[in-house]
Amino acid sequence: MSWNRKHLLDIQSLTAEEIMTVLDTARAFKAVGERAIKKVPALRGKTVVNLFVEPSTRTRISFELAAQRLTADIINFSAEASSLKKGETLKDTARNLEALNADIIVMRHSASGAPHFLARFLRASVINAGDGAHEHPTQALLDAFTVREKKGKIAGLNVTILGDILYSRVARSNIWALTKLGARVTLCGPATLVPKVFEQMGCHVTYNVEEAIADADIINLLRIQHERQRLTMFPSLAEYTSLFGLTKARLARTRPEALIMHPGPINRGVEIDSEIADSGRSVILDQVTNGLAVRMAVLFLVNGGKGPQEVAA
Amino acid sequence: MSWNRKHLLDIQSLTAEEIMTVLDTARAFKAVGERAIKKVPALRGKTVVNLFVEPSTRTRISFELAAQRLTADIINFSAEASSLKKGETLKDTARNLEALNADIIVMRHSASGAPHFLARFLRASVINAGDGAHEHPTQALLDAFTVREKKGKIAGLNVTILGDILYSRVARSNIWALTKLGARVTLCGPATLVPKVFEQMGCHVTYNVEEAIADADIINLLRIQHERQRLTMFPSLAEYTSLFGLTKARLARTRPEALIMHPGPINRGVEIDSEIADSGRSVILDQVTNGLAVRMAVLFLVNGGKGPQEVAA
Amino acid sequence: MSWNRKHLLDIQSLTAEEIMTVLDTARAFKAVGERAIKKVPALRGKTVVNLFVEPSTRTRISFELAAQRLTADIINFSAEASSLKKGETLKDTARNLEALNADIIVMRHSASGAPHFLARFLRASVINAGDGAHEHPTQALLDAFTVREKKGKIAGLNVTILGDILYSRVARSNIWALTKLGARVTLCGPATLVPKVFEQMGCHVTYNVEEAIADADIINLLRIQHERQRLTMFPSLAEYTSLFGLTKARLARTRPEALIMHPGPINRGVEIDSEIADSGRSVILDQVTNGLAVRMAVLFLVNGGKGPQEVAA
Repeated sequence: MSWNRKHLLDIQSLTAEEIMTVLDTARAFKAVGERAIKKVPALRGKTVVNLFVEPSTRTRISFELAAQRLTADIINFSAEASSLKKGETLKDTARNLEALNADIIVMRHSASGAPHFLARFLRASVINAGDGAHEHPTQALLDAFTVREKKGKIAGLNVTILGDILYSRVARSNIWALTKLGARVTLCGPATLVPKVFEQMGCHVTYNVEEAIADADIINLLRIQHERQRLTMFPSLAEYTSLFGLTKARLARTRPEALIMHPGPINRGVEIDSEIADSGRSVILDQVTNGLAVRMAVLFLVNGGKGPQEVAA
Repeated sequence: MSWNRKHLLDIQSLTAEEIMTVLDTARAFKAVGERAIKKVPALRGKTVVNLFVEPSTRTRISFELAAQRLTADIINFSAEASSLKKGETLKDTARNLEALNADIIVMRHSASGAPHFLARFLRASVINAGDGAHEHPTQALLDAFTVREKKGKIAGLNVTILGDILYSRVARSNIWALTKLGARVTLCGPATLVPKVFEQMGCHVTYNVEEAIADADIINLLRIQHERQRLTMFPSLAEYTSLFGLTKARLARTRPEALIMHPGPINRGVEIDSEIADSGRSVILDQVTNGLAVRMAVLFLVNGGKGPQEVAA
Repeated sequence: MSWNRKHLLDIQSLTAEEIMTVLDTARAFKAVGERAIKKVPALRGKTVVNLFVEPSTRTRISFELAAQRLTADIINFSAEASSLKKGETLKDTARNLEALNADIIVMRHSASGAPHFLARFLRASVINAGDGAHEHPTQALLDAFTVREKKGKIAGLNVTILGDILYSRVARSNIWALTKLGARVTLCGPATLVPKVFEQMGCHVTYNVEEAIADADIINLLRIQHERQRLTMFPSLAEYTSLFGLTKARLARTRPEALIMHPGPINRGVEIDSEIADSGRSVILDQVTNGLAVRMAVLFLVNGGKGPQEVAA
C-alpha cells in the first residue's frame, strides 16, 4: 500500500497498512545506512527545519542525521534565543519558516496538539517529534520496527510497557501502534501513574509487576524523569526501583527470549539494572540505530515518497 | 551594470544601479527557489561564516539557508560561549575566522561600524547583517525587492515608515535605498523617536499618522522593541497603539492598493492589528521569502559574481 | 610510513614516523585549501560527531570545517542541553552517538583520559580534541606542522614554551611531539606553574626568561587563563607580564629569526605585546590555517587513509 499523507502527526490516525509502509521503507533505508557511503540524493535541494520549542538533543540529532543522509539541507531552530522569546506567536514563527521555502518542519513542543495546529495552515509538511504528553510517533515507529526486526512479527506478541504511563507520549504512541498491529499490550507502574482509563485504549492494566513481565515477549521500560518528578505521585527513586525496576531478580522471572527496550536516556540502577542494559537481552542501542532509518523513511514519505519500492537499491 | 564590490557594508555608499543589480540578481535566484531542487553550485567549496555577536535567529537562518542553496559550507559563530567572552578582541576573532579560509563573513554586531572596521583589514568579504542603529542593508534590499515585485516599480511611489525611526537600522537603510531609487519617503512616529533631523536624508517627517498614511503606496511598520524599550521616550504600548498603531479604522483611511510591510517579528495588536497582518494587504511573508533570494544574490555578488546574467537559468 | 591507527588519542604513543605521516598528509590537504573549490570527497557519506563536553568554539569550528571540506556529514553535540545533563553517563552518550552510525567522534572533555575511555568500547574512531590537562594532540601536530613549514625542519631546533605549563595540555602534547622529532625543548614560567618534574620528559626547565629565549628558534607562548586563574599560584597579570611577558625589550634579546607562536586566543598586553602579535615574527594565524589542514589529515587517517599519497592531487 502506498503512502499518501503530507504530515506525520500521530499514530492514532494511521492505519496498520500505513504503519507497515513506514516500517518497510525504513528497512530499505537501514540498508543504505550500512553502506560505505551512507547517503542517497532523495531529498536533495529540499529544506528541513528542526523546530524544537522543547529541547531534545537526541531526537534532534537523529532527525538532523536522517535529513543529511537524504541530502536535504537542514536548519536547527530552537526556542532559546529566538523570536518566540520576543513574543512572536508559534503560528508566526512557523509561517516565517515556511516563507523561507521550508519543505518539512519537524516539531517538538511541550503543548499537546501543537503540530496538528501547525499542519492546519502550513503548506509545508509537519512531522511531530513529540508534543506534550500526547504522542511521539517516530518513537513508536522505531520501537515497532525493532520488535519486528528482532521477533520477525508484531501481531500476537505480548508487550509490556512499564513506568510512568500517564505523562508519557512514548507510551501513548506505542499503545496505538502495537494494538493496531495486533500485539497484546500490558501497562504497569505505580497506580498514580497508570490510570485504569488506559484500558479503553485496548490495553491490560496491572499494578503487579510480576504478572506484567511473566509472559512478555517485549518489556519496554519508560524513563523515570526524576529531574522533573512530581513528588506527590511518587515516593522516591529507591522505592520505584524496589517496586518496579527491572532488577536481575525480576529478569530471572521473565521468558528467556523476552527483549528489553527503553527509549533512552536510561537511568542505570533506577528503572533498569545496569548489567541488564548492557546484556544481550537489551535492544536499546538497536532502537537508536533504527530510529535513524525510521526518520529517513518518514522524511522521505511526507515529502511525496510512496514506499520502499522507491528507495534506490 | 555589473557588480564590483567585495563587501556589502551599507546602502549609503551604493549607487542606484548597484542596488538594481542586486535586485535583478535576486530575481534570478528567486526563480531557483521555486524549482524542485532549490540549489545551485555557485559557491561550492566556499566557506561562509555567520559571525553573530548580537543574537538574531531569523536573519542568521536566512543567511544560512541562502548559503546552503548556493552549496557553500557554512559555520555559525555566536558570541555566547566563544573566545570573545575570554577577552579576545573582535579583530582577533575575525582574523582567526579568516585564517580558517573563510571566504565571506556575515556579521551582526551591536556596535555601529563594526563591519566596516572588519572590512578594512580582512581579505575575506564582509556582509553587514545589521550593525547597531546604523544600517541593515539586506533588509532594505529585500524591502525594495518586494516593493518592485508588487508594484512593478519603486520610483515615484510614496513610502511611509512608521514607528521607532531613531534607533532603527532598518529605517536608515530603507531611507537610503528608497530615496536613491526615486521613492518619496515619509517618516512618522512619536516625536521622541522621529527627530526632525531625518529630513536631511531627503525624507518628509510628520507626527500626524493620518497624514502619513493617507497617500502612501507602501506603509512599512517598524517593530516596537518593547522588550528593551526606553521608557523615557515612550509612554506605554497601549498609548503607542492608540496613537500610531495600524488599526482597522486607520487602514480604512489608506489607499485601497496600499501595501503593508513589516521587518518582523510582528507584535500583533501593538504596531499592527492582527487581522491586517494576515490580510491580502500584508506582504510580510513575501518579505521573508524575498529575503532569502536577496541574500543569495548578495553572497553571490560579493564572492565575485557580476550580475543576474551569471545565474544559471 | 603508512598510518594504521583507528584513533588519535595522544602524542605520547605515536612514533616520530607516525607524526611525520600526519604532517605530510596535512601538507597535501593544505594544498586543497588553497584551491578555488576547497573540498574533496574523501569522507563523503561518513558521519563525524563533535562531542564537546567542555566548550570550545575555536577547536570545534576547526574540526567542523575540516569535516565539511572532506564532504563528511557533521553533528555538533554539546554538553549543555544534552542528555548528559539528565544524568546519562558519558559511556551511554557515546554509545548512543555510535548507534547513529557515527564513524568518527571528536571529543573534548574536562577529564583527562576521557577519549581513551571511549576508545576502549566504541567501534567508531575517537579523536582527542583536548582532555583535561592531559593532551591536545591536534594542537601539537599543527604546531609541529607550522614549525616545519617555516623552518624547513624540526630536529635540532631550540623550542621554548613559556607560561602555565603545569595545567596545559598544549604544553604536554607539544613536549611529546617536539622531543620525538628531535627538537630541544625549554620550559619557562613561574615556578609554581613549571615544576622541575617536567625534566623527566626530556626538557630543560628554567625560571630565567632571558635564558629561555636567548637561543630559541621558536618561542611558544601559552595563554594565561586569567578567567580561571588560580590565585594562590599566581600574583597578578601585571606581575606575570613584567616577569614573563614577551615585551619588545625582551624580543630585542631573542635571535632575529626566532618565531613567535601562541595557541590562541591571545591576551594582548599580557603574555604577548600587542605589536609583536601582529608583526612578521608572529606565526599565530598560520597556526590557525594549518590547524584546519592537520585536522583534515587526522580525520582522513583515522577513517582508514594511509598517508599523503592517497590525497587527490
